[in-house]
Amino acid sequence: MSEIQAAEVISVGTELLLGEILNTNAQFLAQELAQLGISHYYQTVVGDNVLRLQRAVAIACERSRLLIFTGGLGPTPDDLTTETLADFFQTPLVERADVLADIAAKFAQRGRTMSPSNRKQALLPAGAELLPNPTGTAPGMIWQPRSGLTLLTFPGVPSEMQVMWRETAVPYLISQGWGQEIIYSRTLRFWGIGESTLAEKVADQLKLSNPTVAPYAGKGEARLRVSAKAKTEAEAMQVIEPVAEQIRQIIGADYYGTDQDTLASVVGDLLKQAGQTLAVAESCTGGGLGQFLTQVSGSSAYFRGGIISYDNQVKVDLLGVNPEDLAAQGAVSDPVAQQMALGARNRLKTDWGLSITGIAGPDGGSPTKPVGLVYLGIAAPDGRVESHCYRFGESRSREMIRWLSLCTVLDLLRRKLSSTPPPPC
Amino acid sequence: MSEIQAAEVISVGTELLLGEILNTNAQFLAQELAQLGISHYYQTVVGDNVLRLQRAVAIACERSRLLIFTGGLGPTPDDLTTETLADFFQTPLVERADVLADIAAKFAQRGRTMSPSNRKQALLPAGAELLPNPTGTAPGMIWQPRSGLTLLTFPGVPSEMQVMWRETAVPYLISQGWGQEIIYSRTLRFWGIGESTLAEKVADQLKLSNPTVAPYAGKGEARLRVSAKAKTEAEAMQVIEPVAEQIRQIIGADYYGTDQDTLASVVGDLLKQAGQTLAVAESCTGGGLGQFLTQVSGSSAYFRGGIISYDNQVKVDLLGVNPEDLAAQGAVSDPVAQQMALGARNRLKTDWGLSITGIAGPDGGSPTKPVGLVYLGIAAPDGRVESHCYRFGESRSREMIRWLSLCTVLDLLRRKLSSTPPPPC
Repeated sequence: MSEIQAAEVISVGTELLLGEILNTNAQFLAQELAQLGISHYYQTVVGDNVLRLQRAVAIACERSRLLIFTGGLGPTPDDLTTETLADFFQTPLVERADVLADIAAKFAQRGRTMSPSNRKQALLPAGAELLPNPTGTAPGMIWQPRSGLTLLTFPGVPSEMQVMWRETAVPYLISQGWGQEIIYSRTLRFWGIGESTLAEKVADQLKLSNPTVAPYAGKGEARLRVSAKAKTEAEAMQVIEPVAEQIRQIIGADYYGTDQDTLASVVGDLLKQAGQTLAVAESCTGGGLGQFLTQVSGSSAYFRGGIISYDNQVKVDLLGVNPEDLAAQGAVSDPVAQQMALGARNRLKTDWGLSITGIAGPDGGSPTKPVGLVYLGIAAPDGRVESHCYRFGESRSREMIRWLSLCTVLDLLRRKLSSTPPPPC
Repeated sequence: MSEIQAAEVISVGTELLLGEILNTNAQFLAQELAQLGISHYYQTVVGDNVLRLQRAVAIACERSRLLIFTGGLGPTPDDLTTETLADFFQTPLVERADVLADIAAKFAQRGRTMSPSNRKQALLPAGAELLPNPTGTAPGMIWQPRSGLTLLTFPGVPSEMQVMWRETAVPYLISQGWGQEIIYSRTLRFWGIGESTLAEKVADQLKLSNPTVAPYAGKGEARLRVSAKAKTEAEAMQVIEPVAEQIRQIIGADYYGTDQDTLASVVGDLLKQAGQTLAVAESCTGGGLGQFLTQVSGSSAYFRGGIISYDNQVKVDLLGVNPEDLAAQGAVSDPVAQQMALGARNRLKTDWGLSITGIAGPDGGSPTKPVGLVYLGIAAPDGRVESHCYRFGESRSREMIRWLSLCTVLDLLRRKLSSTPPPPC
């Protein structure tokens, strides 16, 4: 594939040039292009400015054959991607009745009135195809303004862009002969092991060339990406799977899932298999564990609910925590974590109860109970209860301490459900 | 300041083009340039490739006067920023004895031996000044290869780049007359009004040139960014505040906060002012409302906790919802929302109770109760309770429907606490 056949990502938005938002769209598209095996040599960011956008388009046309735009499709005057492209390629804009009807229907569905400025979003250059936006009002387009040059436009809102990319743009690109050889990857996910230890254990696999194995870390978990280049997904999987399986064997219980799996979805699958139910009692996470569990559609099959006992009196009144233990040992302690887990299990009549009580910071720490100290409780179907103490570190953010707390308690349950021992505290 | 006097950020690294890392350096530099008032119209990302980097430099020289490079300063063969720039400007590389000594000293300090490949990092183009790297081994440079053109190079490691930027690059730029004027911005946040309606109501303000006013939308809320160029922050605020205040007057109750404010923090401040407390009852959000409220450090002053009643029996057992109403009207209904809010308020002994019950999807919808249908309840200190029905739309994601639900119920409470009417459903 020659240089000129590459794709270029052009992100439009003054907010990017002011540093107000991070360009996650460029990363998403870069990953997707790599997966499709489409070469991609340049990314450009330009503001909401007609002249500078036209200059960026002029440069991109000379060096790339597929230009992917994000941003500038909204209803306001500074959203000018579509009209600037139409102008650059000297093509008139046409109001598309089908698009206008779709926008009006979306407003109606949400019980809101379409404003006159939204009408602008129904304008497309003559000859352009619609790139439908199923979740928002700003559609994109697929346009070949001249032979050998394809433009795709997307709104800047990442969730809308990603749906449009996956549902319409990828099938279109494949139908047009882009992406002959795909790079297919699987991501193996681990909890309870650090990235460097993981990398040392799979040092032999890291040296492979097809598939390649690369370690990553993020939000408390370690990951390995196993990637193969192949003509079909099935062919790639034949290369990837044996190595993925070797890695699973080497690492054992710290491996918890692959690709889109989360600790919440994996625990959910194990509970469904066991025909068991779960309730939670949350203090410092304030509902985050319940929220994480219910991100999984269908979680009502095993998750019954919980009690957010942010206040100590709520721990006593709704969970049955002993006020004397609370007074003597404090809310962040083994007995309170255990009584919270038992309380959740008993009051919600479930098989399992999980609890979290800790000091998420940045305030509230003391020399004996520093920020980052968290007790996790787990009450089992046989009524036995245990608790584990973690120190997630005073230097970590409130958000990260809360996240590590709820992932770690789910990981404890995962190991119970799959009969593997917990990692060292 | 003319166009050509602007800065351009050029990020070098194939890992960016593969989407392996997020370009946080570009965002950091964008924010810093905005703060310094240095105009910045383009960002470019290019891989570890001599020819393409040279092409990107050729384009950037034509349109910008200050080129800021990140990445490609390491010891490996694919780190080629310095030598490519020297080659482009036809300047020989010179080994700098002081830099070599500094690198050797850093290796000694860490008890490691300097490898021959690190020697390369001591090469700078003749005439370039060192841009010291206090925390890493790869120094950058400050170079004026020709009159009116300044190049700054930094390693790609964000922590190293940031220290170098702050300690050396910023003082240098100010000494050279860059950054006389800063751009200061405030972001006004709105709930209950769409971006397009908002933009129409403040059409006059959108036409201003100092401050400028620009509309944004994201995650269900509309925002206006008010930005001014001035010599000091205080001077900028004198330009921004009168316009921000005009906008607040025009929009009224749909304005909820500024800059880092969230609906959770704003409601928290109002509860603290009123000396009142809050409890929640959550069904489809599964704990997300509690989590959002407790993202605010210090929220224990007003948030006591809640009940996650994901299962209907939990609504009956722990919140006192009438099982006959549940059977007759379903969990997603006015009476259940009202009884949940009252139950939270009564069981947790708070002034206010909020409830959420709805169909977050993607499954579970029906013709009469489609995905996106949500009932929000609010029980007041006087014991009165009301509920509101919303249709957030079948096309929206589970995540977005949950997010809109919890923001909207907080917005209802915000309006109650500040005695403004709710927006039309």
